[in-house]
Amino acid sequence: MILEMSLRCYPMRVHDLGEHELIKRIIKRLPSPNIGDDCAAVPLGDSYLLITVDGIHEKTDIPKGATLYEIGWYACASTISDIASKGGKPLSILASLFIPEDMSEKDVMSFLKGVDDCASVYGAFLDGGDINYGDSFSADVVGLGIVEKRHYVSRYGARPDDVVIVTGTFGTPSGALSMLQEGLSVPDYVRRKLLMPTPRVRESILLISTGLVTASIDSSDGLYESLRILSECSEVNITIDYERVPKDEWLEATFSEESVFKHVLFGGGEFELVMTARPEIVNYIGRISKLTGTRISVIGKVYEGKGVKILAKGHPLKVSERGWDSFKSQDNRHFRRNGSSSNY
Amino acid sequence: MILEMSLRCYPMRVHDLGEHELIKRIIKRLPSPNIGDDCAAVPLGDSYLLITVDGIHEKTDIPKGATLYEIGWYACASTISDIASKGGKPLSILASLFIPEDMSEKDVMSFLKGVDDCASVYGAFLDGGDINYGDSFSADVVGLGIVEKRHYVSRYGARPDDVVIVTGTFGTPSGALSMLQEGLSVPDYVRRKLLMPTPRVRESILLISTGLVTASIDSSDGLYESLRILSECSEVNITIDYERVPKDEWLEATFSEESVFKHVLFGGGEFELVMTARPEIVNYIGRISKLTGTRISVIGKVYEGKGVKILAKGHPLKVSERGWDSFKSQDNRHFRRNGSSSNY
Repeated sequence: MILEMSLRCYPMRVHDLGEHELIKRIIKRLPSPNIGDDCAAVPLGDSYLLITVDGIHEKTDIPKGATLYEIGWYACASTISDIASKGGKPLSILASLFIPEDMSEKDVMSFLKGVDDCASVYGAFLDGGDINYGDSFSADVVGLGIVEKRHYVSRYGARPDDVVIVTGTFGTPSGALSMLQEGLSVPDYVRRKLLMPTPRVRESILLISTGLVTASIDSSDGLYESLRILSECSEVNITIDYERVPKDEWLEATFSEESVFKHVLFGGGEFELVMTARPEIVNYIGRISKLTGTRISVIGKVYEGKGVKILAKGHPLKVSERGWDSFKSQDNRHFRRNGSSSNY
Repeated sequence: MILEMSLRCYPMRVHDLGEHELIKRIIKRLPSPNIGDDCAAVPLGDSYLLITVDGIHEKTDIPKGATLYEIGWYACASTISDIASKGGKPLSILASLFIPEDMSEKDVMSFLKGVDDCASVYGAFLDGGDINYGDSFSADVVGLGIVEKRHYVSRYGARPDDVVIVTGTFGTPSGALSMLQEGLSVPDYVRRKLLMPTPRVRESILLISTGLVTASIDSSDGLYESLRILSECSEVNITIDYERVPKDEWLEATFSEESVFKHVLFGGGEFELVMTARPEIVNYIGRISKLTGTRISVIGKVYEGKGVKILAKGHPLKVSERGWDSFKSQDNRHFRRNGSSSNY
């Protein structure tokens, strides 16, 4: 009895609680009107300033064999993807580093050059940050962006009869990661898809400018998780056809059907857009796809109800929910490719 | 000869280079038009968006006996101080945490409550951030602010005949830190000055609104270092009277004259404003001081030339330059109270 009480009174460890539950409790305890989406959205005149920060840690977020340059690019891309998913234009990037004493100047510079090169592609500069001591290498990349209020799209607006659209293909980064972690090699373009992803800034701005997009998120935590969040936030059912989810040839040629399924739905780290939109969006998709050179696909539809339904050959699949968690995951010591879809 | 060559070719470790040299090299290698001051200043219409990030690490930045709540407040205050020193108004705060697995939920919440409470005082919210695994506890606090371009004051504008003005008193936080690190106790108000500082947002806005302030910085790295930076950036000589630098009674009653001198000039962590201004500013100081309840003092003057001259009883003192460095300092494993005056 006394043991039971003392166990109950013992302060909950973060490890026992898990990342998602911790975040829920933080938002409940410290509510802010600007929180609850991919970025904080801070009103300023007719615009929202979008601000977001993504941390990476050597022990949990960096795959075997990745260069510091690639990791810098990756961290910056994941931050910019959060801005892109809200229809925003990146304005500024900062990087704060925790550096172990024996790290070389060259590695520090490579990381920052990766951040800066990625920022430049999207019209922003690496505008500074902070330098700190660290036990091991970790870093935070901060992104600042802007979007007109009338073009801001949240996670909360999906409506019945909307279609579900996505950019790019799914599963390849996750498949590539599983091979790199085993010490296997992958083709160059596949490695690039994993480590130097291209956030969909222009695609998002063009799609949203139609006025037809109702909800949006990026797929950094995996397609299924992105759909789950949209469904939960908008209080709707989202049903997709697994066959209509675009996969590239390498993925299907390299993995078993079951592995492809796992990488496509749960892999994460693609930084593609996952959006719901009024059905008339289909009239614009071809042109936007041609303008940007990016594949855009309709993969499903929104219904009244709740949850996510995956149809394969017309039959609903039973999907056990799964997502990464910084603290609970068995894979804790590996690249977890998490933490970028939500601002908390 | 071969040894010599291999030594020369061996990549420079951050530890050998030191923080200040590393930062110089980063800015040279990755230049941005928005970098080089307390915050990044990103132009937006008639305003600058001010963005800054400050990291703290359990092993180097947290004094003995400080609570997580206090550390959260401190980290947020140091970020807001960077915005304040440019005349900015805080808009949003984010906090990204690296959390060891055995940290308690309570400690995480205390830290974030400290950040949020400090943000609230200055009209901003804690608007989110990121949660990551860490070997030990570290965190980045991001600050976003805004200032009209005509009210933005950099480090680069000090001119001969300007006066040097400062807010508050100097040396007490540094004196308090040295006692806490020895396990000694200090009065409550002194502990608060160290751990829950009050960045000078309102004071800065009022002083700058006179149109007479020519250069500004906060004193987070120590008064001498702040003056040195202003002098170097503006290419002027700055001469101050040590006797005119305000010190509080506790400091002078507790320490030897020599220790007081050290804490006042090199201690840092006060988050006071150190400004240069046209001489007519003296007509406004009394009123602004009364409005804000904050002591504002003239401590010196700007001359043609270079460097910082400290006069004590009219005689120039020889000051050997000294500052904290995350990597080179002997005090590496103690609270170093650094990294907040510069965005890099």
